[in-house]
Amino acid sequence: MARRLPTPGPRPGVVALLTDFGQEGHHAGVVRAVVLRANPSARPVDLCHGIPAGDIALGAWTLRWSWRWFPPGTVHCAVVDPGVGTPRRAIAAAAGGQFFVGPDNGLLSYALADAGRPIVVALPLPAAGGGGGPSATFHGRDVFAPAAARLSLGAPLESLGGRIADWVRLGEPIARRCAPGEFEGEVVAVDRWGNLVTSLTAGLLGRERIGAGTRVRLGRRVIRGISHTYASAPLGGVVALINSSGHLEIAVNGGRAADLPGAGRGAIVRVLAGA
Amino acid sequence: MARRLPTPGPRPGVVALLTDFGQEGHHAGVVRAVVLRANPSARPVDLCHGIPAGDIALGAWTLRWSWRWFPPGTVHCAVVDPGVGTPRRAIAAAAGGQFFVGPDNGLLSYALADAGRPIVVALPLPAAGGGGGPSATFHGRDVFAPAAARLSLGAPLESLGGRIADWVRLGEPIARRCAPGEFEGEVVAVDRWGNLVTSLTAGLLGRERIGAGTRVRLGRRVIRGISHTYASAPLGGVVALINSSGHLEIAVNGGRAADLPGAGRGAIVRVLAGA
Amino acid sequence: MARRLPTPGPRPGVVALLTDFGQEGHHAGVVRAVVLRANPSARPVDLCHGIPAGDIALGAWTLRWSWRWFPPGTVHCAVVDPGVGTPRRAIAAAAGGQFFVGPDNGLLSYALADAGRPIVVALPLPAAGGGGGPSATFHGRDVFAPAAARLSLGAPLESLGGRIADWVRLGEPIARRCAPGEFEGEVVAVDRWGNLVTSLTAGLLGRERIGAGTRVRLGRRVIRGISHTYASAPLGGVVALINSSGHLEIAVNGGRAADLPGAGRGAIVRVLAGA
Repeated sequence: MARRLPTPGPRPGVVALLTDFGQEGHHAGVVRAVVLRANPSARPVDLCHGIPAGDIALGAWTLRWSWRWFPPGTVHCAVVDPGVGTPRRAIAAAAGGQFFVGPDNGLLSYALADAGRPIVVALPLPAAGGGGGPSATFHGRDVFAPAAARLSLGAPLESLGGRIADWVRLGEPIARRCAPGEFEGEVVAVDRWGNLVTSLTAGLLGRERIGAGTRVRLGRRVIRGISHTYASAPLGGVVALINSSGHLEIAVNGGRAADLPGAGRGAIVRVLAGA
Repeated sequence: MARRLPTPGPRPGVVALLTDFGQEGHHAGVVRAVVLRANPSARPVDLCHGIPAGDIALGAWTLRWSWRWFPPGTVHCAVVDPGVGTPRRAIAAAAGGQFFVGPDNGLLSYALADAGRPIVVALPLPAAGGGGGPSATFHGRDVFAPAAARLSLGAPLESLGGRIADWVRLGEPIARRCAPGEFEGEVVAVDRWGNLVTSLTAGLLGRERIGAGTRVRLGRRVIRGISHTYASAPLGGVVALINSSGHLEIAVNGGRAADLPGAGRGAIVRVLAGA
Repeated sequence: MARRLPTPGPRPGVVALLTDFGQEGHHAGVVRAVVLRANPSARPVDLCHGIPAGDIALGAWTLRWSWRWFPPGTVHCAVVDPGVGTPRRAIAAAAGGQFFVGPDNGLLSYALADAGRPIVVALPLPAAGGGGGPSATFHGRDVFAPAAARLSLGAPLESLGGRIADWVRLGEPIARRCAPGEFEGEVVAVDRWGNLVTSLTAGLLGRERIGAGTRVRLGRRVIRGISHTYASAPLGGVVALINSSGHLEIAVNGGRAADLPGAGRGAIVRVLAGA
């Protein structure tokens, strides 16, 4: 159990930012500024600031689908933090050759689970309401960006706080094999184009067993076959495909699958395999 | 015909990104990540991720109005790609001292036409549906960003694929001289402020021949004179001016010209010159 | 009065961009391009491009709340410029160890006032309507970005233009002590989450004198107590707190305070102190 803490590996200075701050105000810009002020050679890179306000689950999925594409040594600074200022913890972690900083509300947990063997430390929190000290409402600026900048400078993870084992894990969505060739999952995200991303992955479904004979059911609608591209259906037609993150996805060519009856996050999706 | 391929000139590592991915999801961030992973000293720079989904023509205009302002050796990675995963080709090009990567659907064609003497190669496409290989739906990550990163590292264009001459060209909009001093054009873009950008350029109209005596007609509305600034009309007044890209533009001071009757892309605009 | 001009100090090459260009068009990207073309080692960093079109006051507040978090020597290029092309001046300034470039319409004035002892020069403006020269409508590209790039390269401020003392100052909002323990202020900004940011600061209110006994009045609504976090009220409850910029802010936990009756910019807020 006494695994060695990760030695400072290569740190390319990339600090990847994932928040629900949007692009309308100064918040994302100030986080970039704090990183640059603490580490003049850092390279803040936006992963995404468009997570809907407070949507921890979608933030966690977004990080899960993205982190592995960044260079080794990247420091992810993730802030979707509706409980900012409450006694929720702040954490930093090393896993999969990268680093992660954020609130301990599950936001990092999918990425840490996929990376495997994470080492997690609790960051000290500022005292509440101290005059002139860190704010109670903008820990992205006052807690997470400074910690991320320190990691990007090569600081050992353990220098940031004490190890913990009980960080918050988000529950995984329904994604199961009900019977031979029968699967049940749910919609976990709706993307910008209205596509429905489900919890069912090519790995679970067995990519070689799905194809033209497969049936996908969403509410009363049955989609026949698994397509390769969005353009496989006529305009307005519904398609099911394996998306670029390996998830079964339901889309409408030229339209929005999110507008189908019964669609939306949490909607149950059933698959009857057939190659 | 056997023009020499461009030798690798200075490559400042700037990779300019133009997509319809928006800022809401992980797609733009993952493209930045892939560039940085392949070329740790690259500098991904956003040109724009706000092209409306699948709007190839507006993407092409945006690139046309922008590419020349980037440093020599910039690699443009442009992805507006409604046909992703279909057999449409992927291309890379050198022209005007810069590089361009994107789908072969016309997106690059206005920039290549303006830069002149482009050299274009076809990129190898990933096999469809291969397990664990590149996706069929996110070539920004799996095809275009890797090619752009290679170019940013100094790879010769010809190392990316074989030369082609029949890349897809978008048609040019209506923009013609009907009679001495009479011109016909169309609205090619509506910008964030609701301004109508037309196909008629200062070069065609003859800048010295337009001025206070000029008449611009859009539907039944006639705008008298060419203004220098948006603020030349009273609040709510309609102005015509030559915009920063050299195009005749119709605007409402403090309002949206796009809300005028008959306005919108494709609307015919007529000009009667007069200095 | 003959203060020495600031010698070129450390210039980390950070050029921070604040505009109302949005993310939909090419304008923000072209400004980044111009900076990189003029200074290949510059690092353009977005502060924010989401200022509502022409909203000089909100731009000024955003810069006021942000500039001090950037590294010393940062060059701020700020463009919210509804009067572009009119004879309004363009200015550059040094203050607080940083540099500022923008239109002389008050946009920079809050930051300059807070930084203290600014030195301001007027930039030469391009001649209007010159063929092939700078545009009359995109001074972000043709005036401000080039000036910012020169400053980021180490150019002395005085090499950009002649000193002026009468740059435009925005008026400060209502924020005053009416009687012992009684204060009057106004809403100066509404953020992405619908929170109402007021002109009343912890410094004016006396942080030690506000607390559970304080009453905040907005229209007919009275909020009891100053909270530490947004989550201090039940869902849907209204809270008042000191935000991360030190301003009294009114928020609805899980909702939008901007939807309260009488809310919005300019709304009067009264505070009766009480610890």
